[in-house]
Amino acid sequence: MADEISTLMINNRDKDVLLRLRNDKTIHGTLKEFDIHMNLTLENAEDITDETPVKLNTILLRGDNILLISLPKE
Amino acid sequence: MADEISTLMINNRDKDVLLRLRNDKTIHGTLKEFDIHMNLTLENAEDITDETPVKLNTILLRGDNILLISLPKE
Amino acid sequence: MADEISTLMINNRDKDVLLRLRNDKTIHGTLKEFDIHMNLTLENAEDITDETPVKLNTILLRGDNILLISLPKE
Amino acid sequence: MADEISTLMINNRDKDVLLRLRNDKTIHGTLKEFDIHMNLTLENAEDITDETPVKLNTILLRGDNILLISLPKE
Amino acid sequence: MADEISTLMINNRDKDVLLRLRNDKTIHGTLKEFDIHMNLTLENAEDITDETPVKLNTILLRGDNILLISLPKE
Amino acid sequence: MADEISTLMINNRDKDVLLRLRNDKTIHGTLKEFDIHMNLTLENAEDITDETPVKLNTILLRGDNILLISLPKE
Amino acid sequence: MADEISTLMINNRDKDVLLRLRNDKTIHGTLKEFDIHMNLTLENAEDITDETPVKLNTILLRGDNILLISLPKE
Repeated sequence: MADEISTLMINNRDKDVLLRLRNDKTIHGTLKEFDIHMNLTLENAEDITDETPVKLNTILLRGDNILLISLPKE
Repeated sequence: MADEISTLMINNRDKDVLLRLRNDKTIHGTLKEFDIHMNLTLENAEDITDETPVKLNTILLRGDNILLISLPKE
Repeated sequence: MADEISTLMINNRDKDVLLRLRNDKTIHGTLKEFDIHMNLTLENAEDITDETPVKLNTILLRGDNILLISLPKE
Repeated sequence: MADEISTLMINNRDKDVLLRLRNDKTIHGTLKEFDIHMNLTLENAEDITDETPVKLNTILLRGDNILLISLPKE
Repeated sequence: MADEISTLMINNRDKDVLLRLRNDKTIHGTLKEFDIHMNLTLENAEDITDETPVKLNTILLRGDNILLISLPKE
Repeated sequence: MADEISTLMINNRDKDVLLRLRNDKTIHGTLKEFDIHMNLTLENAEDITDETPVKLNTILLRGDNILLISLPKE
Repeated sequence: MADEISTLMINNRDKDVLLRLRNDKTIHGTLKEFDIHMNLTLENAEDITDETPVKLNTILLRGDNILLISLPKE
């Protein structure tokens, strides 16, 4: 068992991820940094919840808002 | 008493599990990694809440969203 | 005062318990394992909220969803 | 100042208490055990929210669901 | 800066306080004991949310339900 | 980086502050004491959410209800 | 992996940031101080949720209300 599963995310740095949030929003972007709380930074982030994406550019997202992260295929 | 019941999940690695979430969604997939917060990774994950499943592929799901995990029969 | 009241549950291992959850669901099953967070495993679990029970088989339920546990008479 | 106010409950062991819960339910029963999280066990517990009481017998109730406990007069 | 502001409450022991709760209820009573979580006991407590007060007598109230406490003038 | 940003509040003791709460209420008063949880005491506090202010006098407000504090200009 | 991702914010001190809050409000201002809980101070803060911005001047915002922070391009 990994001490903290967030360490798994290290394989996904610089890759595109899809975040489903607890408020039912969906965010897409390139994973850059993260910490053990799953706080993370994304580059080229977009809110793609609705049909027209909303550009968010570089964001720092608090991990406690995350439902799940779709990781890229290795 | 197990120190942390999440250690029980070690018997279910690589097995198919069903997750009921606190937001009433149901997710199905193959359990890979997990930590003491019940943060976990699933492969071949699908959101099977509605009649038409939605493919999520490999996901990292935050444990605090989980209501219960249906474990496979040993 | 017990250090952690969850230790009281040790007398109820292998007995049938009834769980009332914070989301107003009722789950019935045989108590197997548990930890200090009241995370617990049930065998032969059923969601008996509605008239027709839904079989859940072996489940791991996160303790923070529990309102109360009806314990069997000793 | 008491280190943990839950120690005050020790005077009320084996006495009848009334619990108001955060979900607006009212539970009545005889206080037996408790811990510093206000997790507690009641015997002869009844849900008296509605006019017709619902017997719960012996219950273990998670303290984080409690709004307040009406203590018996000393 | 006080280590824990709850120590300020020590000046208000045996005085009448008014509690506004997070669930919009208002409770009135005489402050007796409290701890660092703002768990507190009131004597002669009354729920004065509605026009007709509801007597609660001696209560132990969990601090995490409190919005604010109106303290008496010194 | 300050160890705890609440130490910044020390410059604002005895000054008038405006609190926006998570429940959409707005409270105005003179900041007196506070701790690292942002629990704070206000003198001459008023609930100014509605057009007619409601006098609260001296209050102790739990920090976890705060959205933001408008600080006075230095 | 950064110990705490909040240290990334040090590069953005004195820069303009946009905050999306969990209550769906949007706040704009100049980032000054912050701590590991993402509690932060903004100068020249404005609530720009609705078409007419509401001036908030200098604010201290509790980090647990934050959904995400749009950081300026480096």
